[in-house]
Amino acid sequence: MKEKKHQEPRGKGTEQAGKEVRKEKESAESQGLTAKKENFAEWYPQVVLKAGLADYSAVKGCMIIKPLGYSLWENIQDYFNPRIRAFGVENVYFPLFIPESFFKKEAEHAAGFKPEVAWVQGDLDADGGQGERLAIRPTSETVMYDSYSKWIRSWRDLPLRCNQWCNVVRWETKATRLFLRTREFLWQEGHCVYSTKEECDAETRRYLEEYQKLCEEILAIPVLAGKKTDSEKFAGAFYTTSIEAIMPDGKVLQMGTSHNLGQDFAKAFGISFLDKQGGKQLPWQNSWGVSTRLIGAIAMVHGDDKGLVLPPKIARNKVVIVPIIFKGKEKEVMKRAQELTGQLSSFGALLDAREEYTAGWKFNEYELRGTPLRIEIGPRDVEAGQVVLVRRDTGQKEIVKDKEIGEKVAQTLEDIQKSLLEKARRFLDSRITKARNFKELEKAIGEGKLAFAEWCGSEKCEKQVKEKTGAKSVNMPFKQQAGKDCAVCGKKAQFQVYFGKSY
Amino acid sequence: MKEKKHQEPRGKGTEQAGKEVRKEKESAESQGLTAKKENFAEWYPQVVLKAGLADYSAVKGCMIIKPLGYSLWENIQDYFNPRIRAFGVENVYFPLFIPESFFKKEAEHAAGFKPEVAWVQGDLDADGGQGERLAIRPTSETVMYDSYSKWIRSWRDLPLRCNQWCNVVRWETKATRLFLRTREFLWQEGHCVYSTKEECDAETRRYLEEYQKLCEEILAIPVLAGKKTDSEKFAGAFYTTSIEAIMPDGKVLQMGTSHNLGQDFAKAFGISFLDKQGGKQLPWQNSWGVSTRLIGAIAMVHGDDKGLVLPPKIARNKVVIVPIIFKGKEKEVMKRAQELTGQLSSFGALLDAREEYTAGWKFNEYELRGTPLRIEIGPRDVEAGQVVLVRRDTGQKEIVKDKEIGEKVAQTLEDIQKSLLEKARRFLDSRITKARNFKELEKAIGEGKLAFAEWCGSEKCEKQVKEKTGAKSVNMPFKQQAGKDCAVCGKKAQFQVYFGKSY
Repeated sequence: MKEKKHQEPRGKGTEQAGKEVRKEKESAESQGLTAKKENFAEWYPQVVLKAGLADYSAVKGCMIIKPLGYSLWENIQDYFNPRIRAFGVENVYFPLFIPESFFKKEAEHAAGFKPEVAWVQGDLDADGGQGERLAIRPTSETVMYDSYSKWIRSWRDLPLRCNQWCNVVRWETKATRLFLRTREFLWQEGHCVYSTKEECDAETRRYLEEYQKLCEEILAIPVLAGKKTDSEKFAGAFYTTSIEAIMPDGKVLQMGTSHNLGQDFAKAFGISFLDKQGGKQLPWQNSWGVSTRLIGAIAMVHGDDKGLVLPPKIARNKVVIVPIIFKGKEKEVMKRAQELTGQLSSFGALLDAREEYTAGWKFNEYELRGTPLRIEIGPRDVEAGQVVLVRRDTGQKEIVKDKEIGEKVAQTLEDIQKSLLEKARRFLDSRITKARNFKELEKAIGEGKLAFAEWCGSEKCEKQVKEKTGAKSVNMPFKQQAGKDCAVCGKKAQFQVYFGKSY
Repeated sequence: MKEKKHQEPRGKGTEQAGKEVRKEKESAESQGLTAKKENFAEWYPQVVLKAGLADYSAVKGCMIIKPLGYSLWENIQDYFNPRIRAFGVENVYFPLFIPESFFKKEAEHAAGFKPEVAWVQGDLDADGGQGERLAIRPTSETVMYDSYSKWIRSWRDLPLRCNQWCNVVRWETKATRLFLRTREFLWQEGHCVYSTKEECDAETRRYLEEYQKLCEEILAIPVLAGKKTDSEKFAGAFYTTSIEAIMPDGKVLQMGTSHNLGQDFAKAFGISFLDKQGGKQLPWQNSWGVSTRLIGAIAMVHGDDKGLVLPPKIARNKVVIVPIIFKGKEKEVMKRAQELTGQLSSFGALLDAREEYTAGWKFNEYELRGTPLRIEIGPRDVEAGQVVLVRRDTGQKEIVKDKEIGEKVAQTLEDIQKSLLEKARRFLDSRITKARNFKELEKAIGEGKLAFAEWCGSEKCEKQVKEKTGAKSVNMPFKQQAGKDCAVCGKKAQFQVYFGKSY
């Protein structure tokens, strides 16, 4: 990004990229936050709570998504829904409850989810005995595919593409981490059925590409797209593809997955179709999902010691207007602030005209909440026909003439979006190291990096990496280059794979 | 509504208002539907299933909302969200699970919901004993107000206005009725907190008015707005207001409720605030909701023997374009159909170009699905520079010149919207009878009508109506006229109230 030289007429001064930890600490303390670099694990829940993204609930393991957090989720929905609708995906809603017998039908799937299913006792049997237990959905393959087996008759019914936005429950026993690990979370799950493997492969990949676009173009988070190793694939899948992002602590966060489920679910649930020649065929299926975990990633990747930093494209209120009120000049300032709010309504401009809070309090508040751009208007600005623009990401201030505001706001928001992505990409790049042997692999992981290594494809080598370094295989890039030697065992390599510690 | 005379160049002919049951039966049979007037109770689930609004699930009491049904719910959300956001309401998400202890805090609320709560066993206690049970939310007052007690400190935090779109579970034991009575359903629930009773009263009413607008202006369903009697109010409410619509069988369907909860929940959950003078005060609260039941109402009120009839404002695809293909002329027709689809994209125009179905099959299909307007284009139409427009509500056909299409489509959709509301309003009006005494009340109810009666206000008289006629009090109009004698006991009347049988 080209750094623009901005005038700095007042106040706090620009934060320099190379500022010291001590300075950061001061900044963090003014918001009551731990410094991000000093203790990331402490900083994260603090920023989530203080910015008003989410709150803990009295219900163990569950979270409350507060207005700011939920607005990000709604914006993700508003972006994603038209994208998938254009591909013929239709939104639906399937029941929260899944009969235990459905769960058992696909053995690998059942085994994979069993430990974290919450159960409800169903109705009594006709003869008064205990009825079947109902699972609270941890994912909806089984309940959906039972219906698909009734809906699909012939090739005319394919492809069938459904998606739902819903809550799912996975009875975690590890400590709760807001947005990252909670017993209930929100997500979307797409479930499609195709006549052929080729179609299924292509669309499994297409939805992953959509996730990548969402993350990179909207959330400004660069990701690594690839295929999971067999030991890390979804329970019951033929193969799993994923996008993965790196967090500031060097750990990898899985941002989204798209699974080619093969034909096993179709077999288990009796889904078949008559082809054009009247022959009975087994279809191919995929499923794909992203969750509210993305909101946690936005906070982690872009946030700083003052709070959240929201990429403009995902922020509902991209601009906040703070009038600087002096006695006797209230009217002019408020009038101009209101005009400007109207003029900038396409950016979701928010006017904070509350009299019970000082301008300084408001500056802190919207910095915490990550509002991309702040506009200050005081009496002298009104007289001079100007406003002061303050970027959240860099803290840079700039005086802008009234007639240039619209264009300047649009351009600055674009700059911020671009700059956040570039910064995150530089960080990702700096955290990937090629590891040609086990020593280099251990070193990379030890330094909190991702090791990009050649691998023979054996589960044994994956296990060894896990046991010795704590790192798991992340994924294998779709474009693989001809391999040499496995970085673990030295035998002929089959794949290139990222290893890293993960959430 | 002014009936417009349309040209009728081809095909089936207009259905006349006064058509005989025999004709209806034929029409219904062609879609595999029972005639609506002949057996409404049979017709309703048939139309819901065949039109693809919803499906039964293998899970007892639960339903699947299919793409068409879910698109109506999304359109309701898209309409309603900006309306309430303009009032300062913010969307949030609270946990699905509610600790049993929360439920017990407000005694009336607990008693009201107890019979229909589904429970999950929570974690074990620290000493290994049975932990607290968790309710699957039947409504979220208790889990939200526990948080509100932490969020609200001073008058600056008020009003607090949150809303959530979510699933709720009420363990019904009566027979499942798609959209009307299911164990799980989707809804929105708004929960606000105010400093004063006056604000709370005013906003409780305002959200009800929003529901009325939604029903009348968008869903084309006229409603009766009023206050519930004490015996029919929400469990734990100070008072309940509601909007109620009449269904073709004369039964009343509650379409939405807005409750002034008074201060009892605030007391039970310890919600208080410091006023401007620093004094501790109890706030006032309201809650308000509409559910996917509205989708059932749309089907019931507007549907006919050919299937659904969707009001244009709630239909995602307001127009379907069906090319009439003859060999050798495919290209011209398809080209024109595609152009037109683009031209009418703001109406969500859908082009059904599938070759595996005949035009006749498609006509039936979109009639079943209630698409407001059908456009037929054949080779002769392309030559003549025209299309054929067919209204779903009346079946009227009209030839329209190419250059007039945009305007004509907009105008016809408006006509349909208006006409559906007027038709429904005439029906509602025809089903309300003043009942001056018990005999008249019994007669009205016996005829499947709503009895508008004066009432002394005693629960005893309400009970008597219920026992003798099966009708409950529906609600009391906000504008009450000076009363004379109670239609039940003859004593001095205090209120005017509607009595009717209800869902």
